[in-house]
Amino acid sequence: MTISGTTRLYVVLGDPVAQVQSPGLLNPLFAQLAVDAVLVPVHAPAPDLERIVAGLQAVANLDGIFVTVPHKPAVAGLADRCSPMVEITGSANALRREADGRWYAENFDGTGFVAGLAGAGHDPKARRVTLVGAGGAGSAIAAALLAAGVGRLAVCDPDTAKLTALRARLDAHWPGRTSVSAEPDTAGAEIAVNATPLGLRPGDPLPFRPAELAPGSVVADIIMKPRETRLLREAAVLGHQVHCGIHMLEGQLAAYRAFFDLGR
Amino acid sequence: MTISGTTRLYVVLGDPVAQVQSPGLLNPLFAQLAVDAVLVPVHAPAPDLERIVAGLQAVANLDGIFVTVPHKPAVAGLADRCSPMVEITGSANALRREADGRWYAENFDGTGFVAGLAGAGHDPKARRVTLVGAGGAGSAIAAALLAAGVGRLAVCDPDTAKLTALRARLDAHWPGRTSVSAEPDTAGAEIAVNATPLGLRPGDPLPFRPAELAPGSVVADIIMKPRETRLLREAAVLGHQVHCGIHMLEGQLAAYRAFFDLGR
Repeated sequence: MTISGTTRLYVVLGDPVAQVQSPGLLNPLFAQLAVDAVLVPVHAPAPDLERIVAGLQAVANLDGIFVTVPHKPAVAGLADRCSPMVEITGSANALRREADGRWYAENFDGTGFVAGLAGAGHDPKARRVTLVGAGGAGSAIAAALLAAGVGRLAVCDPDTAKLTALRARLDAHWPGRTSVSAEPDTAGAEIAVNATPLGLRPGDPLPFRPAELAPGSVVADIIMKPRETRLLREAAVLGHQVHCGIHMLEGQLAAYRAFFDLGR
Repeated sequence: MTISGTTRLYVVLGDPVAQVQSPGLLNPLFAQLAVDAVLVPVHAPAPDLERIVAGLQAVANLDGIFVTVPHKPAVAGLADRCSPMVEITGSANALRREADGRWYAENFDGTGFVAGLAGAGHDPKARRVTLVGAGGAGSAIAAALLAAGVGRLAVCDPDTAKLTALRARLDAHWPGRTSVSAEPDTAGAEIAVNATPLGLRPGDPLPFRPAELAPGSVVADIIMKPRETRLLREAAVLGHQVHCGIHMLEGQLAAYRAFFDLGR
């Protein structure tokens, strides 16, 4: 990779930002596609997010903004236009500059996760799925699972206000397809997904108990670091099929390439 | 160069920005010093400069801002503190974040140019020098030439208001050492310097007439692209010694390394 004055910019916003994996995935993709562009990490402290995004949106050679924790909900409000997925989830993880100079927000977390799941042989269509975590990533994954034709979706989160609000948004598009509970409800699930931050730190409790699942179920995690969380290790010991967080990002790469019109 | 979430950021601001050479100089220096940092170009349209700088100053992993045409004077006003060289020249080409989080502005254009000139065997000490162009770069070079003990300095610019103001600032530090004229005054000059933008485009007129100089004089240009301007080509034909713009940037590298405390 050679950076010069003609190089186009992409950034990934987070707080913290040290853990982001996207530069290691996108920069080799730019090189492979012979696109003169670079993705750099931008550590945006929450109180300064609006000011930082306002500045970045005015940078004439900046074509895209990727967004990670905790900024996905706030950034959805800083775009000029939002995709249906952003409206349903209330959060965004990618902004692009449109031809008219306005900024358009999209959320690939859910579609990336579902593409990664299907790519690993676990198509969720008509399956019974339990999703633990109704935050930004969880909301996006819930919507993408419903869009992919999941059989039954149970969403679990101790924050019942958040959970009720999410169900209302999901029911508006896919009426009566989602059940919710404060405690993890894995009874009968064929696929169980962790969409909470539990597992980022070594001492974290498990988001749900993989022993409650039938042997041979799929246990998926969205945490990328560590690659093998305690949840996945315990699931593997129990004979479940495990699905790592990195697949979600890999599933997003093709979507990013289309969204940013790279390598035409 | 591998960019990850831990990579520190430097930017170079300009409008346009495609011509900047600093990424090609600084990024190899970072790699050589094993500094996990990257310098990227930021195209900052003039009306959005304040908004862009305000956003960048809040980015927690951004350690430095380099500045090029036309933003050097404006950026001096966006720093919390300025060096004496910035106060004399009224412009800045580098900002760093201090330990207390405030931004400090410095101007290396002049010292970089003089270091490059001396490094090429053209020490300006006690020499008669004509400098054409009293803008940001010209002001910085004038101050650095006087600081380096130039014998006689003639500064020429058709903008006589700008010229008078510059002489007043220079006289406050080096009284009675500078003469000024609207037209290029190369009579008796041993070193003549172009500090105007003339030569960036193929059809530009010459900033001064090298034929008026005594054979063997030094003709220097601060324009980096093209490397050989029409001024330098005509000067070479006349038997003058020519000094390219890129030397100014090379002369700045050691200064940047110290300013940003790189590779301790």
